[in-house]
Amino acid sequence: MRIVVDAMGSDNRPVPDVAGAVLAAREFGETIILVGDLARLEAELAKHDTTGISIEVKHAAAEIAMTDKPSQVVKGKLDSSIHVGLGLVRDGEADAFVTAGNTGAVLAVSMLRRVGLGRIPGVKRPGLGVVFPIKERPFLIDSGANADNKAEFLLQFAIMGSLYMERVHLVTKPRVGLISNGEEEGKGTELVKETGPLLQASGLNYVGNIEPKEFMFGAVDVAVTDGFSGNLIMKTSEAIAKYMSDTIREEIKANPITAVGGFLAKPAFGRVRRQLDPEEVGGAPLLGVNGVVIIGHGRSGALAIKHAVGQARVVVETGVVAAIERGIQ
Amino acid sequence: MRIVVDAMGSDNRPVPDVAGAVLAAREFGETIILVGDLARLEAELAKHDTTGISIEVKHAAAEIAMTDKPSQVVKGKLDSSIHVGLGLVRDGEADAFVTAGNTGAVLAVSMLRRVGLGRIPGVKRPGLGVVFPIKERPFLIDSGANADNKAEFLLQFAIMGSLYMERVHLVTKPRVGLISNGEEEGKGTELVKETGPLLQASGLNYVGNIEPKEFMFGAVDVAVTDGFSGNLIMKTSEAIAKYMSDTIREEIKANPITAVGGFLAKPAFGRVRRQLDPEEVGGAPLLGVNGVVIIGHGRSGALAIKHAVGQARVVVETGVVAAIERGIQ
Repeated sequence: MRIVVDAMGSDNRPVPDVAGAVLAAREFGETIILVGDLARLEAELAKHDTTGISIEVKHAAAEIAMTDKPSQVVKGKLDSSIHVGLGLVRDGEADAFVTAGNTGAVLAVSMLRRVGLGRIPGVKRPGLGVVFPIKERPFLIDSGANADNKAEFLLQFAIMGSLYMERVHLVTKPRVGLISNGEEEGKGTELVKETGPLLQASGLNYVGNIEPKEFMFGAVDVAVTDGFSGNLIMKTSEAIAKYMSDTIREEIKANPITAVGGFLAKPAFGRVRRQLDPEEVGGAPLLGVNGVVIIGHGRSGALAIKHAVGQARVVVETGVVAAIERGIQ
Repeated sequence: MRIVVDAMGSDNRPVPDVAGAVLAAREFGETIILVGDLARLEAELAKHDTTGISIEVKHAAAEIAMTDKPSQVVKGKLDSSIHVGLGLVRDGEADAFVTAGNTGAVLAVSMLRRVGLGRIPGVKRPGLGVVFPIKERPFLIDSGANADNKAEFLLQFAIMGSLYMERVHLVTKPRVGLISNGEEEGKGTELVKETGPLLQASGLNYVGNIEPKEFMFGAVDVAVTDGFSGNLIMKTSEAIAKYMSDTIREEIKANPITAVGGFLAKPAFGRVRRQLDPEEVGGAPLLGVNGVVIIGHGRSGALAIKHAVGQARVVVETGVVAAIERGIQ
């Protein structure tokens, strides 16, 4: 198997991207193709021991900043690592593309066959999925690819999310819920009310409307929502988790006895942090494009890149793209 | 001042509702009108010492369950405590209505002048505001009254939220942000893109698009969003806060040393819990209806009811309704 790693993706590129690629090549025994500025990534690669592993490099001149507008990147930076990397997958020279780069740019380039990958036939809108870093590991789709949606798009997100959880996470008949502002029928936006009946008739294991608490506490395997709401759920979760950690830390330090308590309890906090660590669950799969694309967080370290490569490998092996092509008809 | 308290509102009605009313009457020295089933609330009231405080009772026969559909309640239970209580405010016999009852029912009855209160002239859609129980105490509007929205509604939420924070929380020139899935111009749904320019031209202290993290960490005083998104933000916050508390508790108990640490650090957790306690910030003001309405959580205890009455009193004193009537033209 040949997996492309965008060497110019993460905030600290190319350091964690290259280190993660080396770790992945060693652990999984697959060929990794690093794409990026040749001089910089070869210099970085030279810092690692690459004996006995299969790593190739491929030049891509243009660099994409986190602040670059996706619409300008698409046709304005045809020689970026995103374009070159996705092109390798499109042309059958690689099996998957892993990046910690500008999500908007990856989405925009992925959608277009001419510059990137293009959609799977029949897919209206690709959706960005994410496995939530909480105990039950539920899958949320769309987590941010499409701000405005139609019911038909949400139905396809549900189908794609179910297939992903079935194949990649081995969940039998994944329970699908539709995110709403109440569980009762008749709650929700017009979009929610139109999507419910489509899901009901879909043949999926649809459990009905769910609220965020059902999503967090294990009531579903796949939660379907529009990309605006999905993004808010993700970002609110991150913000509240950070707020609570900060507040607990401050309050514990405010008094010598609670400070001693905090010191003794530290390993427990470490376990909580690891459990909630997005790096542990890999990157976000972009479902519905004509190839395997995994998007990691810009803050990804080497370990997160390695996990994302491992995830890409499972997505390739389990034939998710072909399953979506059959399932979406 | 005369403030109506819905005695049949909370999950444990009429116990906390009546107890909270008694506490409020004593602390604030205003007249409280308890509305509900006369026999039950008089029996409950008899358990309290009411010497020297001003409490009246008013009968309302019909009871509303949390599961009752708002649309059926509106015209189907004209003698509920919500109808009777709001009627007292509409008819000038009371200054405010406080309830921990079925939010959907309160919203629905409040909107209609014939059975409840009606809207302030010029207001398109009343919005449910909420002061977030985090350190900076930002205000979120709409937190759930309207699932589907127009830009014009969001503009009015911003105006009403600003006036509320200015008058009730004494914030000078409240900073207003528009919740989106990215801070850059051009991010967001069509609704967000249409609302931005209206806010820009509004004369409010508008700071632009914000993400949940800016909202949580003090970048604005008023965050404007549609009721579907606002509800998701609130419910995701609650769910994640509960998830983290549960996880920390479990992890601390998992080992004797961290358990000792957890015991010593307990007062700090208590402070965090109090800080994040929704009861401490009172209820949700329904802005845009023609009178003062404060909606508490169904789980409200006596203290939360008392806080909500205190809040209603400040809203009345500071003339928020009249200010909205002038501000919305």
